[in-house]
Amino acid sequence: MSDVTTDLDLLAGVRVVDLTQFEAGPSCTETLAWLGAEVVKIENPKMGDPGRRLRAGQPDNDPYYFHVFNANKKSITVNLKSDRGLALVKDMLRTADIVVENFAPGAIERLGLGYDVVKALNPGIIYAQVKGFGEGSPYEKNLAFDMIAQACGGTFSVTGEADGPPTRPGISLGDTGTGMLLAITILGALCKKRETGQGRRLEVAMQDAMMHYMRINFATQGLTGKAAQRGGSKVPGINNAPMGLYPCAPGGPNDYVYIMTSRANPDHWDRLLKLMGREDLIGDPRYATPADRVVREAEVDAIIATWTRSRSKQAAMEAVGGVGVPAGAVFDTMELHDEPSFEARGIMQVMQHPVHQPFKMPSWPVRVDGQTARVKPSPTLGQHTDTVLVYWLGLTEADVG
Amino acid sequence: MSDVTTDLDLLAGVRVVDLTQFEAGPSCTETLAWLGAEVVKIENPKMGDPGRRLRAGQPDNDPYYFHVFNANKKSITVNLKSDRGLALVKDMLRTADIVVENFAPGAIERLGLGYDVVKALNPGIIYAQVKGFGEGSPYEKNLAFDMIAQACGGTFSVTGEADGPPTRPGISLGDTGTGMLLAITILGALCKKRETGQGRRLEVAMQDAMMHYMRINFATQGLTGKAAQRGGSKVPGINNAPMGLYPCAPGGPNDYVYIMTSRANPDHWDRLLKLMGREDLIGDPRYATPADRVVREAEVDAIIATWTRSRSKQAAMEAVGGVGVPAGAVFDTMELHDEPSFEARGIMQVMQHPVHQPFKMPSWPVRVDGQTARVKPSPTLGQHTDTVLVYWLGLTEADVG
Repeated sequence: MSDVTTDLDLLAGVRVVDLTQFEAGPSCTETLAWLGAEVVKIENPKMGDPGRRLRAGQPDNDPYYFHVFNANKKSITVNLKSDRGLALVKDMLRTADIVVENFAPGAIERLGLGYDVVKALNPGIIYAQVKGFGEGSPYEKNLAFDMIAQACGGTFSVTGEADGPPTRPGISLGDTGTGMLLAITILGALCKKRETGQGRRLEVAMQDAMMHYMRINFATQGLTGKAAQRGGSKVPGINNAPMGLYPCAPGGPNDYVYIMTSRANPDHWDRLLKLMGREDLIGDPRYATPADRVVREAEVDAIIATWTRSRSKQAAMEAVGGVGVPAGAVFDTMELHDEPSFEARGIMQVMQHPVHQPFKMPSWPVRVDGQTARVKPSPTLGQHTDTVLVYWLGLTEADVG
Repeated sequence: MSDVTTDLDLLAGVRVVDLTQFEAGPSCTETLAWLGAEVVKIENPKMGDPGRRLRAGQPDNDPYYFHVFNANKKSITVNLKSDRGLALVKDMLRTADIVVENFAPGAIERLGLGYDVVKALNPGIIYAQVKGFGEGSPYEKNLAFDMIAQACGGTFSVTGEADGPPTRPGISLGDTGTGMLLAITILGALCKKRETGQGRRLEVAMQDAMMHYMRINFATQGLTGKAAQRGGSKVPGINNAPMGLYPCAPGGPNDYVYIMTSRANPDHWDRLLKLMGREDLIGDPRYATPADRVVREAEVDAIIATWTRSRSKQAAMEAVGGVGVPAGAVFDTMELHDEPSFEARGIMQVMQHPVHQPFKMPSWPVRVDGQTARVKPSPTLGQHTDTVLVYWLGLTEADVG
């Protein structure tokens, strides 16, 4: 692994005070950690980040959620409701570049760490917040979780079968999708701070962030004048055939291949017919143009499915891709986990943890000079309390002991 | 709008040569433009970025897709296959901070603008690439589009009804989701460049990027030892009830409300029963604990749905949220478009375009010191050819005329 992973140094020396929990905030600060920043989670001494899912008196048998959003971070335990704990965090904020929080609305102010307080301590700090709904929204006081943000941000409305109910996209875009937009803005502000020394106040709402990912759907609405629709595995607004999911052998729940022909490339259809032994249909006027094929989409889909049903999704992907027509097998998490090239390329890495079982998980997928960020373990609760206080605040071992 | 939007200056003075098309690349460079960078699209003189969807001899009646991914950019037309055009782009690369491309595999090298060439021209440049599949993947030569990346990256496998086929999440995460991860890494590299003057080579594959958004699903697999499942609008792996979508009046395709009770807060269930006039069930041993309610989930869902069916989704969201239980209505793109608070807060803005109709679209949703990035029009093809050559390359009006 030494060739394909490294400790990325893009943000070496950048200090982040991490007051986040669950996913939207932690996914943002983990990104900074992967790029080399020193990210210190401030956790309550009892149960820590609720994303640890610790339960009183129970063994910790579910560390996975915490692992995936907190790799490469440090953890210190501080009681923010004590005078000493609050003073200590204020001292850390004086020396930090960035602070991120995603508490419920109003909570950070009640803790005595609102923006005006922190800015007075450190005018150069980048103060970043995630909320569920934006200030000025009718729902600004409401709690949000991933599902709520996705429902209210539109993603449910465009996911699912055309004649079925709205459906939750199975990924936590409401959380991680929001965290990524905040990370981008934090890093823009950090570039500016390198010129000016000045900090900024950044705020993002999860509902608002969803609209960023819905832009194609808004573009489709611009064209049609109607709310964007659901289309199962078709893409509403693209009138082309064949395009979609086709069933493969042996017929398991994810044994499908996505095949997509381009309107702009009339060869795609002919190549598929040749590959599938249906040269008899090349030039058949019933299927000659994309418009003809859309009219006869059920027939077109049946022609393709007859061929795909007797092949595995991998074989179908390889054969269709081999004639230059875009195709992709539907892979599930176990198939992705077991595919060796992800680990060989550093995209999946095994987290070696001092307490928990080794766990293979996705790393930061962008390669820098050919290498990905090396995954280091998520911290145990309070693991770095002493060392952070010594190095950040200059306390002696005796002070913190 | 003057109070809530502004020209963000975080990346003022940063020069980006934009060799991208369609969505994955353009969504990345648009983000840089919104934060204040000068992003110049290099487009072929005939039809430009294929995302413009220009068709020979036809009026341009579908500018929306291009608008949403190319706001606030400049456009120059250059024939990259001519010696003069290539030399001109090389001169631009000598003065740029960042270059981004998402051509098909091998195309940038065939153009004569591979990494080694560009690095020799400008060792300080950040050279960023999007591909469908990673170098070293079994599919590295394959084309990818959003749907292919999502199928092969796992998101289809976790979306849809538990007993139905895999389903495409209705948002273009394969494209924009990838673009966001590249933007983060570009800005990390730009921070470092401010210290060292050195550029970096960055590469991301769309399939790999999807795994980043699938981390919860990998965490669930870690716990269960099985591939992550689909769950309709439930979240597989969370054993709690009530949680999910409930039908509302008047019964339109998106008339649903998401209601979520917390395992950690037993009050949620009692509050719902009181709100819904079912105090008779408070303390009923059949529904006392989250585990009891999961066993009787169909009954629990029927109790909730009886109440939601006679209310609008907005009224249901307000009432349930009002008793402190997380709830979110399923909004469609038209409802989001028509909700005035988005425009009042600068989250949605009307693009005023010199050629096309005004178009209301999402802006960058992160507020910087209380303001969002002001949306400026997407460029017409070649609109800035003369001014960019004069200002970037010091050519005179006579040279470019």
